[in-house]
Amino acid sequence: MKFTCNRDKLIEGINIVQKAVPTKTSMSVLEGILIQVYEELKLTGNDLELGIEYEVPAIIEEIGSIVVNSKTFGDIVRKLPDIYVTLETSNTNTLHITSGAAHYEIKSSPAEGYPQVVSIDTSVIYTLSEKDLKSIIKQTVFAASIDGSRPILKGVFMDMTENNINFVAIDGYKLAIKTIEKHNDVPISVVIPTRILNEIVKVLNSNEDIIKISCNENQIMFFTDNFKFVSRLLKGEYIKYQSMIPREYKTEVNIKSKEFLYAVERGALVMNDEKKYPLLISINTEEFVVSSNAENGSSREVVEAEVVGDVLEIGFNSRNMTDCLKAVEEENIKVLFTTNIGPCVIKGTQDNSFLYLVMPVKTRN
Amino acid sequence: MKFTCNRDKLIEGINIVQKAVPTKTSMSVLEGILIQVYEELKLTGNDLELGIEYEVPAIIEEIGSIVVNSKTFGDIVRKLPDIYVTLETSNTNTLHITSGAAHYEIKSSPAEGYPQVVSIDTSVIYTLSEKDLKSIIKQTVFAASIDGSRPILKGVFMDMTENNINFVAIDGYKLAIKTIEKHNDVPISVVIPTRILNEIVKVLNSNEDIIKISCNENQIMFFTDNFKFVSRLLKGEYIKYQSMIPREYKTEVNIKSKEFLYAVERGALVMNDEKKYPLLISINTEEFVVSSNAENGSSREVVEAEVVGDVLEIGFNSRNMTDCLKAVEEENIKVLFTTNIGPCVIKGTQDNSFLYLVMPVKTRN
Repeated sequence: MKFTCNRDKLIEGINIVQKAVPTKTSMSVLEGILIQVYEELKLTGNDLELGIEYEVPAIIEEIGSIVVNSKTFGDIVRKLPDIYVTLETSNTNTLHITSGAAHYEIKSSPAEGYPQVVSIDTSVIYTLSEKDLKSIIKQTVFAASIDGSRPILKGVFMDMTENNINFVAIDGYKLAIKTIEKHNDVPISVVIPTRILNEIVKVLNSNEDIIKISCNENQIMFFTDNFKFVSRLLKGEYIKYQSMIPREYKTEVNIKSKEFLYAVERGALVMNDEKKYPLLISINTEEFVVSSNAENGSSREVVEAEVVGDVLEIGFNSRNMTDCLKAVEEENIKVLFTTNIGPCVIKGTQDNSFLYLVMPVKTRN
Repeated sequence: MKFTCNRDKLIEGINIVQKAVPTKTSMSVLEGILIQVYEELKLTGNDLELGIEYEVPAIIEEIGSIVVNSKTFGDIVRKLPDIYVTLETSNTNTLHITSGAAHYEIKSSPAEGYPQVVSIDTSVIYTLSEKDLKSIIKQTVFAASIDGSRPILKGVFMDMTENNINFVAIDGYKLAIKTIEKHNDVPISVVIPTRILNEIVKVLNSNEDIIKISCNENQIMFFTDNFKFVSRLLKGEYIKYQSMIPREYKTEVNIKSKEFLYAVERGALVMNDEKKYPLLISINTEEFVVSSNAENGSSREVVEAEVVGDVLEIGFNSRNMTDCLKAVEEENIKVLFTTNIGPCVIKGTQDNSFLYLVMPVKTRN
């Protein structure tokens, strides 16, 4: 194996596949990066739950493949002196790295022991632009559960219907739904672990380039000509979330999303423990007030808003509210309430593609 | 107490005095910031080892003083909505913070319980420009010891002679000396804990403004009209470091400091443990080679240099070498050697104000 490539492109590839390299594992071969040079230079990281393949442009002199320790290889390449780097194997399982006047020899192992990333049947392919996939992930993944009490909630529900792509996440305290209008020939619904979504979102740009998606019963693959992310799916039936969304509301507030967010963040500052103290929202016909009252002190802030409907005083966990408000991309939102024990629903004033729901908490009075 | 000030200036002051607020202490009053408003607004943090007073411009309506929890106060001020903030106390030990539409009440305690930062007799004052003080600290403090086996080495030796200000730090593996020419009426030498130096360096700019220094037997004070840093001194006699510096050398290398540094950093990358493997420097009449040989692999790099004198192969701990080379501000340096068991000395080609010394380590052959 011998090839020369651009150092910065190689660093980019290493950074991406390293997301799938486990830091601790009993299978030491998984601590490596698989370097394959056939028609293209391809890097692979794989911890058997998530696998990533990524292609880097290279001038190939001799085909071959090898596995090198991910940390040692990455640390060296990041500090190479020249913008070009030549990698070459000798027959003694050694990788030679040359860049400018610097020369390294690092131990490597044969590619045969490395578990290749599985390929999924691509007879059915769903497509989304990079921009849309980035947006649908960012606007939902934060609402997935992070504890293990209900494993299925640690994933995002991807529901491909005839006319829509829906992503849904819920952790019992908040719910996020994002819909993109798109015709799908073959409806399907699966639950995707948040990890692959959190990693793939890092390689996505906000452009119209197409990302392809294929699934089988156990796995999902996001891919283009240059990369492939494969993850296992979560097993089990997803929660019936539709029934949680109120059919009608008694109070409607129109407000700037950032101003509401900042007021909630500031209100949370007097709390050492946001689970212990609720953030209070008081709505009357003239004012929309965000306040808090905790051991360190209290806060009160009037936020400019347009209020229609019943007066209300309701408490929330400030963290759940900020998580939802941070995900909003629109400037103006509608915040909808039923009663002080019913959920609060956040929607865009113009944009109907997303819906966030936050459950209230008890207040002391 | 009532005053209005610029939010960003207040944040700057809080950030600085917070360096002296302990995160854990049995004296809860020390977790606070003392706010004093008399002729000026003055903030104070003090953990009894290091005390910092910092003045912030303010429009004062009513004099007074109060202690507020440092974390709560800092977190709130950093997120205030308006660029102005008004702070006011009510008679119930509550601090009212108002900025734009946001209003907070936080618990506070009386100033009487807070230990004021001591003032030191200023009949003798040493002076240095901000630029020179910044440089003399940065070029020495890294070489002080961080472990506790010899407590006196955890400080920097400040030696004010009739014609010079010398800062010296040593940890048994490396030594750093920096000298600034300056007449001092009253010679003195003290050992300053690194902590105050690491904190004061953050507030220093690279300008000609004057920083004043006064000492007594136990304490040192760095001060201007706007701030005051006071620290205890380390007790005991400093090490006789002059005898460590060789009188003559057998090999002299002229090299670019950054190229040498990067080669050492890259050479260290194949080592998981830089204490276990030495970094090798091989000098012959034609080449200056930095190499390493460890469990993960090996490296070899020829660095452009001008060599005069004996050939030599010598080993170093890579970390000690990089620490010294990183502190060098000059582009070209002289690297001087005696034998492969003697120290290596680094000096500027033009700049004679600094000297670094690195002890060698045994190589396997």
